[in-house]
Amino acid sequence: MYEGAVQDLIDELGRLPGVGPKSAQRIAFHLLAADPADVRRLVNALVEVKDKVRFCTVCGNVAEAEQCRICLDPRRDPAVICVVEESKDVVAVEKTREFRGRYHVLGGAISPIEGVGPDDLRIRELMTRLADGTVTELILATDPNLEGEATATYLARLCKPMGLKVTRLASGLPVGGDLEYADEVTLGRAFEGRRLLDV
Amino acid sequence: MYEGAVQDLIDELGRLPGVGPKSAQRIAFHLLAADPADVRRLVNALVEVKDKVRFCTVCGNVAEAEQCRICLDPRRDPAVICVVEESKDVVAVEKTREFRGRYHVLGGAISPIEGVGPDDLRIRELMTRLADGTVTELILATDPNLEGEATATYLARLCKPMGLKVTRLASGLPVGGDLEYADEVTLGRAFEGRRLLDV
Repeated sequence: MYEGAVQDLIDELGRLPGVGPKSAQRIAFHLLAADPADVRRLVNALVEVKDKVRFCTVCGNVAEAEQCRICLDPRRDPAVICVVEESKDVVAVEKTREFRGRYHVLGGAISPIEGVGPDDLRIRELMTRLADGTVTELILATDPNLEGEATATYLARLCKPMGLKVTRLASGLPVGGDLEYADEVTLGRAFEGRRLLDV
Repeated sequence: MYEGAVQDLIDELGRLPGVGPKSAQRIAFHLLAADPADVRRLVNALVEVKDKVRFCTVCGNVAEAEQCRICLDPRRDPAVICVVEESKDVVAVEKTREFRGRYHVLGGAISPIEGVGPDDLRIRELMTRLADGTVTELILATDPNLEGEATATYLARLCKPMGLKVTRLASGLPVGGDLEYADEVTLGRAFEGRRLLDV
């Protein structure tokens, strides 16, 4: 529809997740009119990310070295591992400043529909980490959906016989949310998990 | 929040129009996991677009040469110019296959709020094109919103004294739309512009 280079860019942008044809067009025209220096910065960021970023050989998190910053940090408690699906979940947990242990990034969740089985996740690497007995607690922080729950159940069955304390993040009402807008499953979970108030 | 290169990419992506922080993160992780060849194609498309694409010296449309394909096409009627705000509007009109004249891309619309005045648009270039008397009709196809209407009115006042036929695209109900979902302004326009049915 457009002349060569513009259409090529629209096509490439349209392949990105969540970018439809209209957004791709809008971004392409924005870049066309943008300062060449801005576009160069984006290009450099793309090249750098593919050049520099690897995955931590220990936990599977994104890293710019053999190991990620968290695995390299001696102040992080090696006795507790928080298991998450993706690197972005690490960032989400880090933002809470609640957790001072280490992570293990699975690279997804078990999903028979999408053909993802335990062997497609970094479960073998997790078992290797648990082998020497340093780890005493495993916090399963996979997503609170079907796939995440299935993965947590699978891991719990695998790890409990090893004498580990295996925990799962609490489900319930989002803080600051409104009870009437909570979906029934979440509200049900909130009832199940209700706790005594110490007053 | 992330290590250097990943955060840099998220920042750069987040500067694109319509890409919020969550989308930027999602796209960055998609690219991290993507085939390096795919990322290279995107990088090339970005570089090419800034290297190759210019703006047609005649009409202001995107072009890969001194002039755009439409201005260079001898089959396009030089007597009719369709004035649009942006290059993407040219594509939209071209898709209709209704128009066989030439275009003039203004590069925006008059908007006092955003500080865009007539001098910021390619209006002087339009006047130059109209000077030799080849053009007999000017179709004002700016957007049917406040800024587009203001721009159309401004151009009509400027060009009518030159003896040109100046027209504006019809406003009305979208074809295939549902009357009850039309907003009141559009419905009002549809009444104003009602036409006799020849049956």
